[in-house]
Amino acid sequence: MGKVYLIGAGPGAADLITVRGAKLLSRADVVLHDALIEPAMLDYAPNARRIAVGKRCGQRSTAQHFINKQIVDAALEHEVVVRLKGGDPMLFGRADEEMRALEAAGIEYEVVPGITAALASAATLKRSLTLRGVSRSVALATHSRAPDSDEIREQASADSLVFYMGRDSAPDIARQLIDAGRAGSTPVAIVEACSTPRERTLTITLDRMAQGEAQDWLDASQPSLLMIGEAFAERVSASAAVSKVLQIAA
Amino acid sequence: MGKVYLIGAGPGAADLITVRGAKLLSRADVVLHDALIEPAMLDYAPNARRIAVGKRCGQRSTAQHFINKQIVDAALEHEVVVRLKGGDPMLFGRADEEMRALEAAGIEYEVVPGITAALASAATLKRSLTLRGVSRSVALATHSRAPDSDEIREQASADSLVFYMGRDSAPDIARQLIDAGRAGSTPVAIVEACSTPRERTLTITLDRMAQGEAQDWLDASQPSLLMIGEAFAERVSASAAVSKVLQIAA
Repeated sequence: MGKVYLIGAGPGAADLITVRGAKLLSRADVVLHDALIEPAMLDYAPNARRIAVGKRCGQRSTAQHFINKQIVDAALEHEVVVRLKGGDPMLFGRADEEMRALEAAGIEYEVVPGITAALASAATLKRSLTLRGVSRSVALATHSRAPDSDEIREQASADSLVFYMGRDSAPDIARQLIDAGRAGSTPVAIVEACSTPRERTLTITLDRMAQGEAQDWLDASQPSLLMIGEAFAERVSASAAVSKVLQIAA
Repeated sequence: MGKVYLIGAGPGAADLITVRGAKLLSRADVVLHDALIEPAMLDYAPNARRIAVGKRCGQRSTAQHFINKQIVDAALEHEVVVRLKGGDPMLFGRADEEMRALEAAGIEYEVVPGITAALASAATLKRSLTLRGVSRSVALATHSRAPDSDEIREQASADSLVFYMGRDSAPDIARQLIDAGRAGSTPVAIVEACSTPRERTLTITLDRMAQGEAQDWLDASQPSLLMIGEAFAERVSASAAVSKVLQIAA
């Protein structure tokens, strides 16, 4: 019986996987990878059998059930099995189902973290998610459908908000955040296909997102991130920032 | 004039840096690194001059000012300058001050993301931060001092809460979360010195954290993470989890 490594591939670029992840890929007998994985990432595993699993955005439970079975079957046949997941396995990654299946089958496994898109997008934008005096907390959430008002109220309270895969619900998210008390002028930074050759960014406001601008601009076939909060504003000079903070405090 | 790379070193283990980060380190002429960086991480940069900067927990602004100056000075003398920061630069990393200083000096720079401790700790614990039907959002915050009630109310609303460096304020955080409506039985997973040889974990409850158990157990000289929420409970069988979710929903 083999060992399974649940590895986070990171946001897209092949060199944004960890050194540990790349080394394990080079030893892999079989790699079960998300459909979203960049092809260059699989060059780390030249000798492995490669199996594309998973659906583009969200998976039905039957599909997940089948993936679980494929991982378990691979571990019964091979020594080093890599389950390569986009981003980080422990964040919006459905890893829980896969870990349960491995535990139920008595198969040894390990989790190797990956760069999640929120951090890679902050690096692309050169905007820190936390900012002294401006942003002390970050909320990470996902909305493939329109959020209900309870959900959005929960998330509205963090200083910086990051929504994974929020294209279709972008106008609803913006409207509900404004209803929950966020200013319409709050900056929104949008990053699509982060760290890949197809990467694009757009900076708008909550008002403009409510009017559908993010939804119109985003390509539904690419992964995307909505980043909302004062931390994503254009960087002003240090002295201007200080007066702004003093103004807010007053 | 050189180029500066703000690189996230990740949680500690040398092989949890990204491939991009490791490659840039190998080309570095000078590495300005946090005091917390594991020594093995610097083996990636055998030919670089190494300068330890930064204080253990939190930095006074004078110290940060001096670090900014050191980075700018290094870029005026060397071609490839690496500023190596623990975790991810864009999360509780004071990168904003450093980016401002580089922009003011007209120095080119790039940010390379790193694995943040929350993701590495979730991998260690084999607990997903998000869980279908249980945890849909994650809040990341830091509290070196006791939080005020407004702050804690903001953060209490996310399903999974992660506090960076919360040792001294752990009892206060727990008491205030209970006051804000979280059950005293809510699981708390604590990870110290994640991914290093000194890594330790403890699983308790909010009630026990309120009574000082986390604070007593943690080593003040090590970095630590408090992870709070139902996602950090012992994993039960799928059918038991379903009945629990149904019970909560009822």
